[in-house]
Amino acid sequence: MSGSNQKKQIIAEGPAIILAEPQLGENIGMVARAMANFGLSELRLIAPRDGWPNERANAAASGADHVIENVKVYDTIEEGIGDLKYVFATTARQRDMISTVHGPKKAAQLMRGWFNEGLPTGILFGRERWGLNNSEVALCDAIVTFPVNPGFASLNIAQAVLLMSYEWMTTRDDELATQSFAGSDLPPADRAELVGLINHFEEALDEVDYFYPPERRERMQLNLQSIFTHAQLTEPEIRTLRGVVSALQRRWANGRAKETAGNDDA
Amino acid sequence: MSGSNQKKQIIAEGPAIILAEPQLGENIGMVARAMANFGLSELRLIAPRDGWPNERANAAASGADHVIENVKVYDTIEEGIGDLKYVFATTARQRDMISTVHGPKKAAQLMRGWFNEGLPTGILFGRERWGLNNSEVALCDAIVTFPVNPGFASLNIAQAVLLMSYEWMTTRDDELATQSFAGSDLPPADRAELVGLINHFEEALDEVDYFYPPERRERMQLNLQSIFTHAQLTEPEIRTLRGVVSALQRRWANGRAKETAGNDDA
Repeated sequence: MSGSNQKKQIIAEGPAIILAEPQLGENIGMVARAMANFGLSELRLIAPRDGWPNERANAAASGADHVIENVKVYDTIEEGIGDLKYVFATTARQRDMISTVHGPKKAAQLMRGWFNEGLPTGILFGRERWGLNNSEVALCDAIVTFPVNPGFASLNIAQAVLLMSYEWMTTRDDELATQSFAGSDLPPADRAELVGLINHFEEALDEVDYFYPPERRERMQLNLQSIFTHAQLTEPEIRTLRGVVSALQRRWANGRAKETAGNDDA
Repeated sequence: MSGSNQKKQIIAEGPAIILAEPQLGENIGMVARAMANFGLSELRLIAPRDGWPNERANAAASGADHVIENVKVYDTIEEGIGDLKYVFATTARQRDMISTVHGPKKAAQLMRGWFNEGLPTGILFGRERWGLNNSEVALCDAIVTFPVNPGFASLNIAQAVLLMSYEWMTTRDDELATQSFAGSDLPPADRAELVGLINHFEEALDEVDYFYPPERRERMQLNLQSIFTHAQLTEPEIRTLRGVVSALQRRWANGRAKETAGNDDA
């Protein structure tokens, strides 16, 4: 089932595939091969265990050089998805958190729609051993799960990437997928701006001991993250909200300043 | 992306997967794993190079024991497909022979239809190196090809089986593949609660003279309103956000209180 097709057109477009802390070079290579088979080309690695470049990845890529040579490496997931407008997280298990869940075909159709509008998108895949944690999933717009056998769910990362890449390719000529999405005319903000807003909110709330008691902190943060993630905020909206938080923060500073000024006068 | 699901129902039904003269045990094992992931269970081997059973196949199957243990071995393709009513041949390349060609989804739908009628069916996969010859393809009812990148067509046998198995599973409950589940079952909150949140925000922002200069007040309020309106907030989310605003308001009050208390002490 292999062939040398150097002279034929290479399709190389579509969502970025982002691997969180991949361990095995073989897996990275097989992911690159899976992507190339179905026309994807942008592979991002978050803190790969064995560094980059990786000989074993090259070998397993079976000639998907255009993918391997353009791999980008990042330290954190936040950085790796910072410039993207829509990001889906793939997970093996259902999670008890508030998030939209898509099947692979639906996810690919949505991605195709955004792609046709010129918006950068990505699909985040978790670690070989334990996937993604809740706060990482909360950075993403929705979850993609695969309709696996309930009695035997053992998809590896390269297989999961293969299925998503395949579904991406099948939407290429799918009219349904090219329909526009409803909503504001503006696309959602970059993920980095969203993270900035969430961090800003958390900082302001930390200053007033909002996250109390400590054992509830993580859950409270997740709730906040998902509210803002699912709100599909645009760039101007994020600017507005950051202004709101700053204003509320300044108030306290001003309040203190006024009191202090009063004291000096007295 | 793996899990131990021993106690959950194992789906094991559907068309037989037939491998023509497979060479590598690893490939046989990965085929078994791919099948198990998507509910297929009947694996037939035509003259496997290294005989059967095969330790390397067992290892690569990652626990798909119910597939491995029931493998049947045949000497020829004719024998291996002899009892089947419909057989599809998968091929990487288009062939200049008169045969119907299906995409994987269409092929899976046809297979599902026959399966529902109680008819035994199978999907034949070629050799790792050179696939199937024309006379072998001619034994089959139709050809299945995959919509691969014309410039990079390098699907291996386990990947091809994975895609067919996946498409088989998606026909089980077509909705599974295309559906999206709203993460929360919760509908957006009542409009009144939304207005309450917006008013609360505006009140807090008025306290810090956020709406300045006055002629911009209306525009600024509209911006805020539309942010929260478009976010499709649920009732719990609105409660969370009101808690956030209250916390930020209290800070100011607390700040004043502390200063005042300090003054009293001095």
